[in-house]
Amino acid sequence: MGRIPPGPRTVSTDLRISEIFGPTIQGEGALIGEPTVFVRTGGCDYRCVWCDTLHAVDSAYRDTWTPMAADAVMVEILRLSGNTPLTVSLSGGNPAIQPLGDVIALGKPLGYRFALETQGSIARDWFAALDVLVLSPKPPSSEMTTDWDMLRACVDAAGPDTQTILKIVVFDDADYAYARDVASRFPHLRIVLQPGNPTPPTRDGHEPVVDIEATLDRTRALVDRVTQDRWFNARVLPQLHVLLWGNRRGV
Amino acid sequence: MGRIPPGPRTVSTDLRISEIFGPTIQGEGALIGEPTVFVRTGGCDYRCVWCDTLHAVDSAYRDTWTPMAADAVMVEILRLSGNTPLTVSLSGGNPAIQPLGDVIALGKPLGYRFALETQGSIARDWFAALDVLVLSPKPPSSEMTTDWDMLRACVDAAGPDTQTILKIVVFDDADYAYARDVASRFPHLRIVLQPGNPTPPTRDGHEPVVDIEATLDRTRALVDRVTQDRWFNARVLPQLHVLLWGNRRGV
Repeated sequence: MGRIPPGPRTVSTDLRISEIFGPTIQGEGALIGEPTVFVRTGGCDYRCVWCDTLHAVDSAYRDTWTPMAADAVMVEILRLSGNTPLTVSLSGGNPAIQPLGDVIALGKPLGYRFALETQGSIARDWFAALDVLVLSPKPPSSEMTTDWDMLRACVDAAGPDTQTILKIVVFDDADYAYARDVASRFPHLRIVLQPGNPTPPTRDGHEPVVDIEATLDRTRALVDRVTQDRWFNARVLPQLHVLLWGNRRGV
Repeated sequence: MGRIPPGPRTVSTDLRISEIFGPTIQGEGALIGEPTVFVRTGGCDYRCVWCDTLHAVDSAYRDTWTPMAADAVMVEILRLSGNTPLTVSLSGGNPAIQPLGDVIALGKPLGYRFALETQGSIARDWFAALDVLVLSPKPPSSEMTTDWDMLRACVDAAGPDTQTILKIVVFDDADYAYARDVASRFPHLRIVLQPGNPTPPTRDGHEPVVDIEATLDRTRALVDRVTQDRWFNARVLPQLHVLLWGNRRGV
């Protein structure tokens, strides 16, 4: 007697995708320099005043976000990477809004690794399936407010098998003090400090030329601060992709 | 009856130190952005044509190298770091020439971590006491010849408790092919590719202004190459300290 064939795998069809591009290198944080394909979801629960990915945040861009099923996303990752496994960077917007667990479940058996970056305002059980969770709570200069309980829920959701790393953007002294506060709340997590982009893309879609010297100035100042304060488990890294490609999208 | 007091701890007195400086950040490789104190030894068995630390290599600078005992080196590390543990970067010249095992033995109980970078031409049993061993065999553009057996002996000496990472400087196509060859010989090791400094310090001690745009151009070209070849376990990182501080020494 034949076995009943399994029904079609249920996959979500409600992912809103702003862009999928690569392979390029990760420009930020602990994975800096690593080849990656980016999956950028559309939609965000935050409106940081210095947001550098408004095209994936502002609802004015909503008609540029494509509804995709998880398997269609994975097919595009496979196409871009030539079926050669690499680390996929899930970004946004806030990718935690979207049900990305199915994409991870499809990719991991094929050898793909998954890193997700979020502000930590929404916790998901599928964070535990990630290889790397980058929590980037937003400092005072963003004009957003941190929900500390939710940030902790994100850390807890990731659990012991996911590498969880903090990343804080620092524009000014208040941001630096905030970063120290975050670090003191999560002393067991590694933390990366990233100088803010002095010339981010503007709300009208303009991509200004990056002031490289100003970016390097801010990096130097942050290095001075960290070393003077002997904050030796912090790491200071500029946005390498901004140095390499400016504010251009899709690289 | 009283115990016989232990004799003074035997420490080597024959370290030749070019400079000890920091804290600053590590500008290269897998530890990029991490606060560190550098211990640069004097003397090298190589003469890479594009060497950027001739003051620690060329015997013309020999009278600037200070003979120091291991405990004196550790005292200086403690002073610079304000007794706050961090990662110490042992560099050169070729630091594997020097008996640095005693410095590591003094620092580790105090919580200090040790990373050493060498071309892999000399293997030492104390590599196994390192936290990180960066093996940076030199590509054809250096005009040096790799001793593959010795490079493998370095990997073996480090053993399973030390994180061993490859780093290859790439100036041209032949260097890139060399990097691929190295990777194929050590498929289990992570590898970082670093574009060569287009404007290194000169033999007469001149420190030319770094051509940042040329450095970024070379980084972009290397990213393109790696992603086109789907070499996804390589990592591409520029020399961050060169971008931040040019060819200046002591930062």
